[in-house]
Amino acid sequence: MIKNIIGNIDFIESLRGKSASFILALSNSKTINIKGITQAGIPNLIHLTPTLDAEFMAVGEVRCLENIAETPKGVPTPALMSRAVHLLKPFREIEFLNLGLEVTPKVKYFKQHNFNINPSGSIDVGADIDAESIFQKGLEFGREYKLNSDYIILGESVPSGTTTANATALALGYDAKDLFSSSFKNVPNSIKEQTIKKALSNIEKSDNIFDILGKVSDNMLIFNAGFILGVNGKFPLILAGGTQMAGVLLIVNSILREMGGEIDSSNLALATTKWVVEDENSDIKALLEMLDFPINGYFADFDFSLTDHPALKLYDKGEAKEGVGAGGALVYGVLNGVNKKAITNKIEIFLS
Amino acid sequence: MIKNIIGNIDFIESLRGKSASFILALSNSKTINIKGITQAGIPNLIHLTPTLDAEFMAVGEVRCLENIAETPKGVPTPALMSRAVHLLKPFREIEFLNLGLEVTPKVKYFKQHNFNINPSGSIDVGADIDAESIFQKGLEFGREYKLNSDYIILGESVPSGTTTANATALALGYDAKDLFSSSFKNVPNSIKEQTIKKALSNIEKSDNIFDILGKVSDNMLIFNAGFILGVNGKFPLILAGGTQMAGVLLIVNSILREMGGEIDSSNLALATTKWVVEDENSDIKALLEMLDFPINGYFADFDFSLTDHPALKLYDKGEAKEGVGAGGALVYGVLNGVNKKAITNKIEIFLS
Repeated sequence: MIKNIIGNIDFIESLRGKSASFILALSNSKTINIKGITQAGIPNLIHLTPTLDAEFMAVGEVRCLENIAETPKGVPTPALMSRAVHLLKPFREIEFLNLGLEVTPKVKYFKQHNFNINPSGSIDVGADIDAESIFQKGLEFGREYKLNSDYIILGESVPSGTTTANATALALGYDAKDLFSSSFKNVPNSIKEQTIKKALSNIEKSDNIFDILGKVSDNMLIFNAGFILGVNGKFPLILAGGTQMAGVLLIVNSILREMGGEIDSSNLALATTKWVVEDENSDIKALLEMLDFPINGYFADFDFSLTDHPALKLYDKGEAKEGVGAGGALVYGVLNGVNKKAITNKIEIFLS
Repeated sequence: MIKNIIGNIDFIESLRGKSASFILALSNSKTINIKGITQAGIPNLIHLTPTLDAEFMAVGEVRCLENIAETPKGVPTPALMSRAVHLLKPFREIEFLNLGLEVTPKVKYFKQHNFNINPSGSIDVGADIDAESIFQKGLEFGREYKLNSDYIILGESVPSGTTTANATALALGYDAKDLFSSSFKNVPNSIKEQTIKKALSNIEKSDNIFDILGKVSDNMLIFNAGFILGVNGKFPLILAGGTQMAGVLLIVNSILREMGGEIDSSNLALATTKWVVEDENSDIKALLEMLDFPINGYFADFDFSLTDHPALKLYDKGEAKEGVGAGGALVYGVLNGVNKKAITNKIEIFLS
């Protein structure tokens, strides 16, 4: 079942039975090197997470790791859900956006758009991003993108991305202190807060919006803001993610405020998971309500109540919530008659 | 399972696995105001039936009624079946034809074709339809229609539509007195017969075919006759309905007789429910056999034997039979591997 966060259900209902392109935006930020900032991956190999997510999504294998068995330790990647849906009701295509990866996914035959973007720096010392250039690349990509299906589901895999999104929203002046999610249940607030504080301290009074983004944000957030404005409603676009994707929308909002211009948001929506919506440490709805333009927000009523697998149960306990387009993929599954039991079974097989 | 009424199964078998556009023709006829003529809806609010059917089909909610709880009283709408199939194996698109509605469906994002047609009058005093104009609108719409899938399933929601279809067939000279269905089990023949008698009494000897249709028919019947001739076999078209859709075909037949011309009916079929085919008070097969052109007719072998829900059991008792494209939707379900149990379960959830 699909439920509303904000807006109405008509937009998403109109996509029932339609085909979708799954686009995954991948990026590394050196912010992950701050000890304890994220648990989105294997300790000491967290920089590989977007690469492994892409590989698993495309071909069902992780290739940039020698020992596959290490992967499902701790909290398993939400890519499990996106891949399960893809097996049950395949996306029309899967494409990757390389927005600054340390290691390129080892998959052939799948389109990997390369934009010559480097991994971004750690925001505590300044991310050192040429934000205007990244934004322009996203804008052009959106303007020129040829859709081979009926709509896009845009997911992301960016470890430490909720921290950079949170810093970004605060730097842009949104009153969003306690609204951002985390891959942790018990969010390490002191580390996160300290990092964000340091990031914000690098901003100078004379900084324009791109200067600010270049210091506190990440490539995915900036590029996708451009992408959304480049597409500008010419086809349906679902931002598949939680508070990070809300952060992308806040950048869009600030750019429109700053530079003028309008967005046709009637064909734009955000779709996330139940875990994000029910998270007590963040508030996706409040973030979406900060936008000056109307937006539809949805979540898939999916959880792991049908399994006993302890690693999956961590999701229901709030240890992981979203990523790799899981929420959007689950919504797509519902739109195409895929049920919870079937998805759960597929994921159990991945972990067995 | 799909069974034959007339013709052969090859046409419908060739559509297995193909995508379908579900088009719902909606119209109001003031004939509903004749007391006891129909039970297709909520007493005193029967004019809302097509509007509510469209809303429920598109978004799973009825919006033009304050109290949703009133809907499933008595005989629940056959839209339950069409929507259940759509959830299990979505149609490629859902579109609506506004052929004279009192209240427009409150749904966004779904195409609602508007033809500036008013609700038709009550046939006992003359329906007062500009039949030639309505027919022309259907013809042009069919000629220009751009199909975004592999075939069309054309359903209807027109309360009192079996009465107007019956009157139409008789007025056009078909020996069809006891061949038309009804939403009732114990058809209120005296009321229906009296209404049809009155309708026929308005016809004058000098009336041409459009004069006749303008007095005794309804917008849906006339428009769809035009639509079928406009499409004229350029893509597969399934008339999803019972004796009303047979009535549309009789109009096509009479127009061809009257005005000459030919129809390529090789890509045309009718698909209905088991309840229509097994109805002892009507004879869909006999109606289809009256056509001068060959036609394929099918029904889905679906009933409510797998549920104990009393409102649904009314169908198996003959209290309701067809509408909102239910027969065609069920056939589409079978063509795409959706089983009876799954459909029944979905419908039970709607009513729970």
